[in-house]
Amino acid sequence: MAKRATIGIDIGGTKIRGVLLGDSRVVRILEKKYYRKPPVKNIFLTALFGLIDELLKQAGPRKVRAIGLGVPGVVAKNRVWAAGNLLTLNRLDLAGALKKRYRLPLVMDNDVKTAAVAEWQAGAAKGSRSLVMITLGTGVGGAYIANGILHRGAFDSAYEIGFMVIDSARTLRGRRGDFEGLVSEKFFTSRGLDPIKSELLARQGNRRLLRLWREYGKYLGIGIANIANILEPELIVIGGGMAHAWPLFAPSMRQSFKRLVISPLARSRTKIRRATLGRNAGAVGAAIMAQGGKFGLRA
Amino acid sequence: MAKRATIGIDIGGTKIRGVLLGDSRVVRILEKKYYRKPPVKNIFLTALFGLIDELLKQAGPRKVRAIGLGVPGVVAKNRVWAAGNLLTLNRLDLAGALKKRYRLPLVMDNDVKTAAVAEWQAGAAKGSRSLVMITLGTGVGGAYIANGILHRGAFDSAYEIGFMVIDSARTLRGRRGDFEGLVSEKFFTSRGLDPIKSELLARQGNRRLLRLWREYGKYLGIGIANIANILEPELIVIGGGMAHAWPLFAPSMRQSFKRLVISPLARSRTKIRRATLGRNAGAVGAAIMAQGGKFGLRA
Repeated sequence: MAKRATIGIDIGGTKIRGVLLGDSRVVRILEKKYYRKPPVKNIFLTALFGLIDELLKQAGPRKVRAIGLGVPGVVAKNRVWAAGNLLTLNRLDLAGALKKRYRLPLVMDNDVKTAAVAEWQAGAAKGSRSLVMITLGTGVGGAYIANGILHRGAFDSAYEIGFMVIDSARTLRGRRGDFEGLVSEKFFTSRGLDPIKSELLARQGNRRLLRLWREYGKYLGIGIANIANILEPELIVIGGGMAHAWPLFAPSMRQSFKRLVISPLARSRTKIRRATLGRNAGAVGAAIMAQGGKFGLRA
Repeated sequence: MAKRATIGIDIGGTKIRGVLLGDSRVVRILEKKYYRKPPVKNIFLTALFGLIDELLKQAGPRKVRAIGLGVPGVVAKNRVWAAGNLLTLNRLDLAGALKKRYRLPLVMDNDVKTAAVAEWQAGAAKGSRSLVMITLGTGVGGAYIANGILHRGAFDSAYEIGFMVIDSARTLRGRRGDFEGLVSEKFFTSRGLDPIKSELLARQGNRRLLRLWREYGKYLGIGIANIANILEPELIVIGGGMAHAWPLFAPSMRQSFKRLVISPLARSRTKIRRATLGRNAGAVGAAIMAQGGKFGLRA
């Protein structure tokens, strides 16, 4: 019998990442930049098709049986409904275009949900019975896996925790008081700072920035305490680009978390960990989901 | 075969309510006040035992096979861990005391969770596939039922949505910025107002109070939008004493809800309804849970 494989794609704000997943291991990882400002449909599709074509070639004798796609935004019923930071996708029947070209079964989901599947199967959440994944980057995403199921809510797009309002005073004044407004890169950019430089300078001992990262951790702690009080997962996994600054915000995050979680059991037993798969998580998870099984292959 | 029955008890801040539930209908509802300030253990237990004794007598030839208990506070592993407004319970092995006296299987859960079960089986949420129940009273409680299961989280006390921080600025100043602080009776009492009088006067046209109820609705809308963005239930049921003022806050609640829900599907399709079983919900739900079956009888 020929070996089998799936392809997993993660569409980012400026790049597309793809993996070829064999029966039990990642065979190949590729990346393509497509970004032109504003992103143009044809440039985007050319990059995407080019990437998939190359992965298909790499598959060699393996039979690729499905494609998985992680997309930044609200995904429901195989359509992108609201792609926060990648508006091109809103006007694109991506699933239709891919199925027409490749005639392969297709699974499409929010990129954080695919990343959560990867962390659960092969990363920080391996063996965990229930977990919430949070990604901190340009935006803030969330996913919830419990009892072997990636949960999706009644309308297929639950766990969009980036949109949870945390600072109602700001929201009521018409500004962004949601979790994403407070703990994504916007925490720094809205203060005229670059998040990467802010991390670097804080690590070098800059006091103002050390203080700012502690404040960032406080907000993060508030948000994950809300998650613990509501969903009460066994484990919270934190990924995304900003997780890189973990040592700078983790202490104040844990402190405000412990102060605000109401159940004594949850307060002492909830595990909080960094994601381990880094930038490949979204694509690897999409490829795992394309393998079908408990994640439900949707064509 | 003898008819069977269960007893359901709802422990409130000043009263205990009990129902005798036959195979398919409520046979008897009783209520006992026990409140002395501060609540004393013996007075409380005497009232509770008296109520159960009387319901057992009312059962007549029916065989009472279990007792269900709804308790205000965090309940896990048949113990009360944190009873917000009824601290007596924290130091009491209620399950032990009842099992010793009655030698009947016992189910104990948070009172909002039992109320949610009642609304789902016989009230506003009948036939619903997924629902969040929110109660607005002295405190704010929550419960989540989906796909036939009352969900409990990893440590048995999830969906404590009253403790979700919504106004982080307040929380960071050491005040109460949580949902309970904003949409329980405290919304009025913290302003030196009585919630019942405030409803009455607003219904009579008092402009200041009409405005205050609209503001209350805005906060409520923020909280339930958070719930929709995270859990995405098909239905949100709102109960508790303050739901009585529904017409005064519902329009502004719906408006802020729609503004903040990110998924277009959830925004247009999430149903928001008033609870219909009123003050009996908690006790009826406890009796239903004591019947066992999918709710999991825990002795």
